[in-house]
Amino acid sequence: MEQLRLAVIAGDGIGPEVTLEARKAMRAALDGVELVETEYSLGAAHYLDTGEILSDETLASLRQHDAILLGAVGGDPADARLAGGIIERGLLLRLRFAFDHHVNLRPTKLHPKVTSPLREPGAIDFVVVREGTEGPYVGNGGSLRTGTEHEIANETSVNTAFGVERVVRFAFELAEQRSKRLTLVHKKNVLVHAGGLWQRIVAEVGQQHPDVAVDYLHVDAATIFLVEQPSRFDVIVTDNLFGDILTDLAGAVGGGIGLAASGNLNPSGEFPSMYEPVHGSAPDIAGRGIADPTAAIISAALLLEHSGHPDAGQRIRDAVDGDVDARDGSRRTTSQVGDAIVDRITA
Amino acid sequence: MEQLRLAVIAGDGIGPEVTLEARKAMRAALDGVELVETEYSLGAAHYLDTGEILSDETLASLRQHDAILLGAVGGDPADARLAGGIIERGLLLRLRFAFDHHVNLRPTKLHPKVTSPLREPGAIDFVVVREGTEGPYVGNGGSLRTGTEHEIANETSVNTAFGVERVVRFAFELAEQRSKRLTLVHKKNVLVHAGGLWQRIVAEVGQQHPDVAVDYLHVDAATIFLVEQPSRFDVIVTDNLFGDILTDLAGAVGGGIGLAASGNLNPSGEFPSMYEPVHGSAPDIAGRGIADPTAAIISAALLLEHSGHPDAGQRIRDAVDGDVDARDGSRRTTSQVGDAIVDRITA
Ligand SMILES: CC(C)[C@H](C(=O)O)[C@@H](O)C(=O)O
Ligand SMILES: CC(C)[C@H](C(=O)O)[C@@H](O)C(=O)O
Repeated sequence: MEQLRLAVIAGDGIGPEVTLEARKAMRAALDGVELVETEYSLGAAHYLDTGEILSDETLASLRQHDAILLGAVGGDPADARLAGGIIERGLLLRLRFAFDHHVNLRPTKLHPKVTSPLREPGAIDFVVVREGTEGPYVGNGGSLRTGTEHEIANETSVNTAFGVERVVRFAFELAEQRSKRLTLVHKKNVLVHAGGLWQRIVAEVGQQHPDVAVDYLHVDAATIFLVEQPSRFDVIVTDNLFGDILTDLAGAVGGGIGLAASGNLNPSGEFPSMYEPVHGSAPDIAGRGIADPTAAIISAALLLEHSGHPDAGQRIRDAVDGDVDARDGSRRTTSQVGDAIVDRITA
Repeated sequence: MEQLRLAVIAGDGIGPEVTLEARKAMRAALDGVELVETEYSLGAAHYLDTGEILSDETLASLRQHDAILLGAVGGDPADARLAGGIIERGLLLRLRFAFDHHVNLRPTKLHPKVTSPLREPGAIDFVVVREGTEGPYVGNGGSLRTGTEHEIANETSVNTAFGVERVVRFAFELAEQRSKRLTLVHKKNVLVHAGGLWQRIVAEVGQQHPDVAVDYLHVDAATIFLVEQPSRFDVIVTDNLFGDILTDLAGAVGGGIGLAASGNLNPSGEFPSMYEPVHGSAPDIAGRGIADPTAAIISAALLLEHSGHPDAGQRIRDAVDGDVDARDGSRRTTSQVGDAIVDRITA
């Protein structure tokens, strides 16, 4: 039987709770495919227990999989032992960089039955294509005279034609399959070198996609449109940091971060892609079985779609849509939501 | 008679239209103070006409004033002659840096009669204290092999203890006068050096303000709160780029960028502070007399308040509040709005 080798990094906080439901959904949705699941104990809790963040051996082992499902990593933000982004940089970003996840795909779709915080949301259905391996995330920073009144701390955003072009190409191809509108978001009037590069590459790649209408927004203006007229967007392509900011905002206007899924893609397939909800580990509600697993379950659908199992992915999506349609505001536990979705998948 | 020496940079697009109304309001509101206004022809149009962006002589002349009122600068974004942020960097940011406008003050208050795009906005009344002279705005960027497939473009964010501390002190003092809540916004889990510096300085200055409750949000999470629960904010302190993004979003949730005013402050008074609406030059509606001058008029109130004329500032604010209260959705020209506000000031 065909196999899908899945690495699961359940992680911290609500991560284990929500990935459990996502895995149930995948097992129910896959037909004639054996899901081989390997659990990796990684995250803030694992680090505090063992001192290990992510060893080269673990990285090599993760690489042997077809895809990675990640719950959430990160501990109590007030815990001084986790300061300096040690888990975020050492684990999450290390995975994204090591596995060359240069396309961070983050769709937002307002379900008809979901309430947006916007008064007049209109039809919200767009995808943010966030660059995942460059920009201000590269870790090229440092400080001098640290901790003194003369400290200077720098952070360098690194942007290459190679890195920008591949994600821009992906975005144009996606726009071709959708409604053929692409918005570049940057801050080219201030970050003139990086912004100039992004603008040039979008113009160049755009010549090969004459049917895609391209526009440009400064990142500050983009946030205004996201709350005043989100229906104007179809595909947004942007850098790592702007994409981080815009997708949290997009998740919120799309009905809440509890529904926001994402894929960290390595489109060439050289390394396994990694799928995760946009939300974090939410330590405040962890362990109580009340976290909403929907974003993790939609992330599992994304995973299947990008791993050669589009029908199984669609089954999960249909079940999620049906479940969301039926939601009446009554509280359900994490596993009740997962079970209800599994019931719809197998119905 | 006491004088207030005002430099006016009306600028481009709707800038001249809205500053005209702001100046009318100032003249009407000042009592026993002579407003000496000097107009400076600067901006994209002036640059295209003359080749001059901002000469050292003009800068020295501007410096002789008590305050600067700026409309908006920037031309057609599609005009290749204005590419590379030449006006933004060469004029607007040059002024902010040369006059050491390290506090960029951006209040958001949802007026009871104004419709927010949010379904349940709650009471929105907060101030963003945006650092104005450091961060990713410093212009420490460059590119190699520009225009080729091997281009690499870098942008460096520079943050100093000196620069962070002075704006953080200002924010704490403001929080003391307001409801004693301060939120630091950064991305310290990724930009660990800059974020670490900001966090340390906030903790240190906070020790001298034990009655101010301090919390921290990552910039991405802050955008979620701005649409889901904006009433949680009182004073936000953040870096130059995050402040740029958050204040456009804040303006939108606060009822639209047409009401958002700002002050670029040099609190020591060594250089003149500069006041401007948060909106841009809006070339699409320029010259038609339909731009909303309210943000420029509120900026004039901010100017008076910070230039030793708080009563005159309050008169403008009361008149604006009265005018906004009376708005019924019917269209008015720019000068009709200005005249109505002036009538209230002088009533
Ligand atoms: C946890 C953090 C490093 C991460 C990011 O900034 O990319 C998160 O916010 C996200 O969007 O996936
Ligand atoms: C025009 C631009 C340089 C400016 C900025 O980014 O600061 C504007 O967006 C603002 O917020 O005042």
